[in-house]
Amino acid sequence: MSGMTGAEAMARTLIGGGVEVCFANPGTSEMHFVAALDRLPALRGVLCLFEGVATGAADGYGRMARRPATTLLHLGPGLANGVANLHNARRAGTPIVNLVGDHALGHKPLDSLLESDIDALAGTVSAWLRRSSTVDGLGTDVAAAVAASLAPGGTGPDRTGTSGAIATLVVPADLSWSAPARLAPPEPVAAPAAPSPVELDPVAAVLRSGEPVALLLDGTALSGPGLRAAGRIARATGARLLSRNWPARQRRGAGVPLTEPLAYRGEQITAQLTGVRHLVLAGAREPVTSFAYPGRTGRPTPAGTRIHALPADFLEALADEVAPGVTPVVARLDPPPLPPGELTAGNWAAVVGALLPEEAIVCDESITAGLTTLHTATASSPPHDVLGLTGLSIGQGLPVALGAAMACPDRPVVCLEADGSAMYTLQALWSHAREQLDITTVILNNRAYAILRGELDRVGAGAAAAGLADLSRPDLDFVSLATGLGVPATRAWTTEELARQFRHALSEPGPHLIEAMLLPGA
Amino acid sequence: MSGMTGAEAMARTLIGGGVEVCFANPGTSEMHFVAALDRLPALRGVLCLFEGVATGAADGYGRMARRPATTLLHLGPGLANGVANLHNARRAGTPIVNLVGDHALGHKPLDSLLESDIDALAGTVSAWLRRSSTVDGLGTDVAAAVAASLAPGGTGPDRTGTSGAIATLVVPADLSWSAPARLAPPEPVAAPAAPSPVELDPVAAVLRSGEPVALLLDGTALSGPGLRAAGRIARATGARLLSRNWPARQRRGAGVPLTEPLAYRGEQITAQLTGVRHLVLAGAREPVTSFAYPGRTGRPTPAGTRIHALPADFLEALADEVAPGVTPVVARLDPPPLPPGELTAGNWAAVVGALLPEEAIVCDESITAGLTTLHTATASSPPHDVLGLTGLSIGQGLPVALGAAMACPDRPVVCLEADGSAMYTLQALWSHAREQLDITTVILNNRAYAILRGELDRVGAGAAAAGLADLSRPDLDFVSLATGLGVPATRAWTTEELARQFRHALSEPGPHLIEAMLLPGA
Repeated sequence: MSGMTGAEAMARTLIGGGVEVCFANPGTSEMHFVAALDRLPALRGVLCLFEGVATGAADGYGRMARRPATTLLHLGPGLANGVANLHNARRAGTPIVNLVGDHALGHKPLDSLLESDIDALAGTVSAWLRRSSTVDGLGTDVAAAVAASLAPGGTGPDRTGTSGAIATLVVPADLSWSAPARLAPPEPVAAPAAPSPVELDPVAAVLRSGEPVALLLDGTALSGPGLRAAGRIARATGARLLSRNWPARQRRGAGVPLTEPLAYRGEQITAQLTGVRHLVLAGAREPVTSFAYPGRTGRPTPAGTRIHALPADFLEALADEVAPGVTPVVARLDPPPLPPGELTAGNWAAVVGALLPEEAIVCDESITAGLTTLHTATASSPPHDVLGLTGLSIGQGLPVALGAAMACPDRPVVCLEADGSAMYTLQALWSHAREQLDITTVILNNRAYAILRGELDRVGAGAAAAGLADLSRPDLDFVSLATGLGVPATRAWTTEELARQFRHALSEPGPHLIEAMLLPGA
Repeated sequence: MSGMTGAEAMARTLIGGGVEVCFANPGTSEMHFVAALDRLPALRGVLCLFEGVATGAADGYGRMARRPATTLLHLGPGLANGVANLHNARRAGTPIVNLVGDHALGHKPLDSLLESDIDALAGTVSAWLRRSSTVDGLGTDVAAAVAASLAPGGTGPDRTGTSGAIATLVVPADLSWSAPARLAPPEPVAAPAAPSPVELDPVAAVLRSGEPVALLLDGTALSGPGLRAAGRIARATGARLLSRNWPARQRRGAGVPLTEPLAYRGEQITAQLTGVRHLVLAGAREPVTSFAYPGRTGRPTPAGTRIHALPADFLEALADEVAPGVTPVVARLDPPPLPPGELTAGNWAAVVGALLPEEAIVCDESITAGLTTLHTATASSPPHDVLGLTGLSIGQGLPVALGAAMACPDRPVVCLEADGSAMYTLQALWSHAREQLDITTVILNNRAYAILRGELDRVGAGAAAAGLADLSRPDLDFVSLATGLGVPATRAWTTEELARQFRHALSEPGPHLIEAMLLPGA
């Protein structure tokens, strides 16, 4: 044990707990942990140029690996920079272990320049939060953090199922640099608690009633097995399959049962659910609108629709009961044809759908550009996974792509990014290049916060206000931006150009970026 | 009053309180405020592509205007993205009014996707925090926020003087869109409380004692009048003048008394203060180190040095007592000669010092690249103001430059940015271009988090760890990055190239960026 620091004890415990990657933007108070990474290659440090990249990458990693990455963040301001993407991760139910360095215990009362209330910040996004107080306890603390990240209890889609949680450990610098008397034995990571038994009969009765039923799927109900179970139920009973829009992770494409995504606006959801007598929430929450509007309800489920809840983990048992021996209807492999002409909000998605490679991981932050088109365009593409904008805090797509590619180095990652959202955490591209990851980013450049344009129209605002949703003056040039960050980039104005560039990007190793210029208003 | 929304009442009250600029990154819950801006051109909306740009710009604006700008932030995640630069602003004692939109009151219990604990986040950086609860109270709430931002009580350099504070008002969307029955009369903004009388005699006695005295200046003691008073005292009594490093705002250059900046490291500060019998803190706090290190003290003032406190506002009265009729020694106008050759960490600052225009505002986030050289190189340049990295949370320089230029459109702004720090909030360049501000940014590209390299050397880390402080692989190309954000950019490898490009940038209106390539290790 001689020469081991507390920081090294932490790193060894993380490795013992199955953690392999640390997305880091360290500072002085984390230098001993950085030094420990040097000695322990089993825990790989990935440098990020901004903390929101690190936390978003940990989200993408956790969604694909289904176990935590760790982040390494520098005091309160470093954590603050990562909070927005931790918010998204919290809504996704992603397991993450945040390590936040703090000042040495004796230094805190001095209120030195970087001192701030780390605990209050961490509390807003963490299901588990601890401040280490002894160097000998560091190993135990880290093991507890890993276990907590894998336990249910987050505020992700399925609070009762197997989704994970955000665990934050605040580590005073003096504990990191001190020598522990003993290394805490890596605690066995607790298996997620078995879900409590659920009474399936009422839901089964609803499904057999002959009345119109829809299943709304989220969480693990959107995994391959979950969707197959749902598909069996749908085929046997005629139930409709709805899915949460912008899911944490959804299996899609050829061989997978199709779902109909829940609409974005409340009035659209109400129309969508009109006539549905029973809405079964399989790992999902009751639909609520993202925002309130004057005179409109935030709970758009029609008054005549009865709501039933079913943990996603019981979907297969339910299928065995109501659809024994039934095979689900699945999407055929039948990608859309390449559309011709200038790129628009209406046709770009078909190019992606036509060329999407097998087992792609699609990180979808296309927002308005993809809201109504992407789902359809990729329904009959080869099988793939889609990772969505779970918490509506923009700036997660490029970091999530980084993490997903680290978790699945053998799968192609396709990142679909709206222009305004891309600008939040564009620094992620540099890490794409540094790690030479197979990520193809398509920037959907409509020169606007298009979603805000729609909102401004709703409130009747005029020209000057519309300027605050306008991203031209000056135009953003994503080819130059990507080049500056080390990612080869091209620009496409037509579907043919996008197709050629997309094929090329997928055929070459390493990251690429394509700026897709969408005709304004189209 | 017909047709007026709560949002418009807020905007009118801000205008009545002297607020002229709103640095905004709005979302759906802020659309009615955006619409109000449309009708009220006296409150100018400046769009920022990331909230950290908006809050940093409000910091720069407040430091120069000495009155608040307002920010417009979107719910908890939007505020979180702005927290790091609010941390810096808090340490600077800058007046800022944050308007944070929240969900409508009835919508909050639905826990919709963007719901989070705004109040906990805001509490970490706000001296004043209120959540509006009635539309008729909005005007009063906003007036109180403006007044609070101008009251002392922040944690800036001079807690007893005239520095401002961060006031955050959380505004539920339904209050913004509702119609108030009455418009609250704009409350008169309370004048900052007159400082309590201070007993000057003990400090005067110290200064007359003949024992070695140093004045450590911060806050308003670093203003032109404050420095002249300090200079009179120094000339009359032989006291040394020290200044906080990275001040919120310091007057410097020809005609201004010189100060010796406090060193960064504790052992350097101890050496600097050795032999000083009395340290008079004029608007300053006792020196503490930024970080703790094993076996070193965080309070580096030598044991034999007695500390005395004096609010900065009493510096002139003290000068009248101990230095009546005395004229201070001031810096002559004598810029350094242009150094020849390849650019290094040691010579770039002399180029800036040689060419700095009169009344420049120097936003200094050069960190290690400028720590030991910039102060000397610009000491005899034309008179100017320097705005420093007050809270050590990197990513404030480019946003602060945006705000300073908005506050002082007739003054040239020079932004000196380390490469790693620039990448935190690079989006600010786009707002530089959009507003066509006279900002010349010099990126000091040493391809490293150089400050971390130094820290890693201290802990004896090896090559892999050093990779986490390395910003090459791939090299950042700031010319491409600036071009992509609409700012004309050039690259300089030699002092001659930097001089030519710097002159050109200053001679043309609008923003420019120069990437200064510093020889590694030099």
